[in-house]
Amino acid sequence: MTTTTPTAAEERLRIRSGAYTGPTAGLAPGHVQANLAILPADWAGDFLRFCQANPRPCPLLAVSEVGDPSLPTLGTNIDIRTDVPRYRVYRDGVLTDGPTDITELWRDDFVAFLIGCSFSFEEALLADGVPVRHIELDRNVPMYETNIPCVGAGRFSGSMVVSMRPMTPKNAIRAIQITSRFPSVHGAPVHFGDPEAIGIRDIADPEHGEAVPIAAGEVPVFWACGVTPQVAIRNARPPIAITHSPGAMLITDLLNTHLSVL
Amino acid sequence: MTTTTPTAAEERLRIRSGAYTGPTAGLAPGHVQANLAILPADWAGDFLRFCQANPRPCPLLAVSEVGDPSLPTLGTNIDIRTDVPRYRVYRDGVLTDGPTDITELWRDDFVAFLIGCSFSFEEALLADGVPVRHIELDRNVPMYETNIPCVGAGRFSGSMVVSMRPMTPKNAIRAIQITSRFPSVHGAPVHFGDPEAIGIRDIADPEHGEAVPIAAGEVPVFWACGVTPQVAIRNARPPIAITHSPGAMLITDLLNTHLSVL
Repeated sequence: MTTTTPTAAEERLRIRSGAYTGPTAGLAPGHVQANLAILPADWAGDFLRFCQANPRPCPLLAVSEVGDPSLPTLGTNIDIRTDVPRYRVYRDGVLTDGPTDITELWRDDFVAFLIGCSFSFEEALLADGVPVRHIELDRNVPMYETNIPCVGAGRFSGSMVVSMRPMTPKNAIRAIQITSRFPSVHGAPVHFGDPEAIGIRDIADPEHGEAVPIAAGEVPVFWACGVTPQVAIRNARPPIAITHSPGAMLITDLLNTHLSVL
Repeated sequence: MTTTTPTAAEERLRIRSGAYTGPTAGLAPGHVQANLAILPADWAGDFLRFCQANPRPCPLLAVSEVGDPSLPTLGTNIDIRTDVPRYRVYRDGVLTDGPTDITELWRDDFVAFLIGCSFSFEEALLADGVPVRHIELDRNVPMYETNIPCVGAGRFSGSMVVSMRPMTPKNAIRAIQITSRFPSVHGAPVHFGDPEAIGIRDIADPEHGEAVPIAAGEVPVFWACGVTPQVAIRNARPPIAITHSPGAMLITDLLNTHLSVL
């Protein structure tokens, strides 16, 4: 008996059926995964400008047509109402629910924004022999809210959320080279070293994800993170907004290697 | 009355005449400058292999024909016996003299090796708005002997010499991107942060060049340095070897921008 890795389409169907509601790291290897933000059309223009002005945390992979839950440029037969394992529903900026299906909540004025995710560059790091601590430990990546301001756009504003990976300086230099090739999935780091310099009070207590140990001789390296829009949505307080649950992403048909600009 | 910047050829003639014997930083802006090592032909094969095996500290820009002091691929009418402001003469691995002209020492079995120099990437850093401390302070760059081993080749072996530039993490990330485009002039850094991790005992006391202050919030960033061959020559003890004096380089007709691979 042989086993084969499920395709991106197969994983989406498994998620759509409700059979899988967990984190998507490691599913459909080689395929781009994406952060999600859904907003009503009268909030979508401001949000689109927010993403455009902050490409490091919010690199846009696709924006849906108004009311259309398909995303034809990201994959065949995607239905954004069912194909993410777990969602977060924000009402007036407050997280109120975490459903696994938003079919009942969908409205014909909704616009879905799909934003690049660091899973794509982590695959390139691992392929180059650069270890990634949270993957070694089978944890969600640690994410921190910083004091790095995003550029405001209309009603959206806030600070940047970053993900952190501890590395030796040698591996950090290599990681900067590798991730610079992937601007549509956050690109190069925004900081390394002293966490307080970007407003992180306690590196052992991330606001999202799980902490990982930093070994002697390693420095924390920080990348802009696709959870940043959730801070901006909290601040803007739209009557309704729906995002993915951190770590539970949309799996697309795109290949990670195709995102490399070099 | 207008002034014009001397060309590379004009600067070489000024140096050849003996009218200028100082450091070459800032002369003939835009033009590649090069580190020098001259060895007898029966030592040249080992040294060529040493450079090939250690491209970060010893990126070869040109190797002369045996006994020929011209370097036609680096510029018109170059005479390596006169066109470097100050030389260092090593006998049996010991520095014995620092002449400004080696015409009397030249032998018909000499081979000249020209090695890339960080001046080329410093110009790219400044053009991008990344400040370079020792240039701001009008000092020679600080250089340190490390415990990073070079790959040995025949009679040549030794540790890497590095140059150091203090930077904020944000500027260091940008500097890694910029210098990665210039592999023939040392490329990306080899280390940042803790000096002791690469065997540097006292960051305030460089073995070559001049110390520079590191400000709060900055980290030292270390690049492989073209003074590395001088350590290998000290160790190998050839009966005679001639190098440039650190900071007093050969000015070539090549353009720095042409060294960028991207």
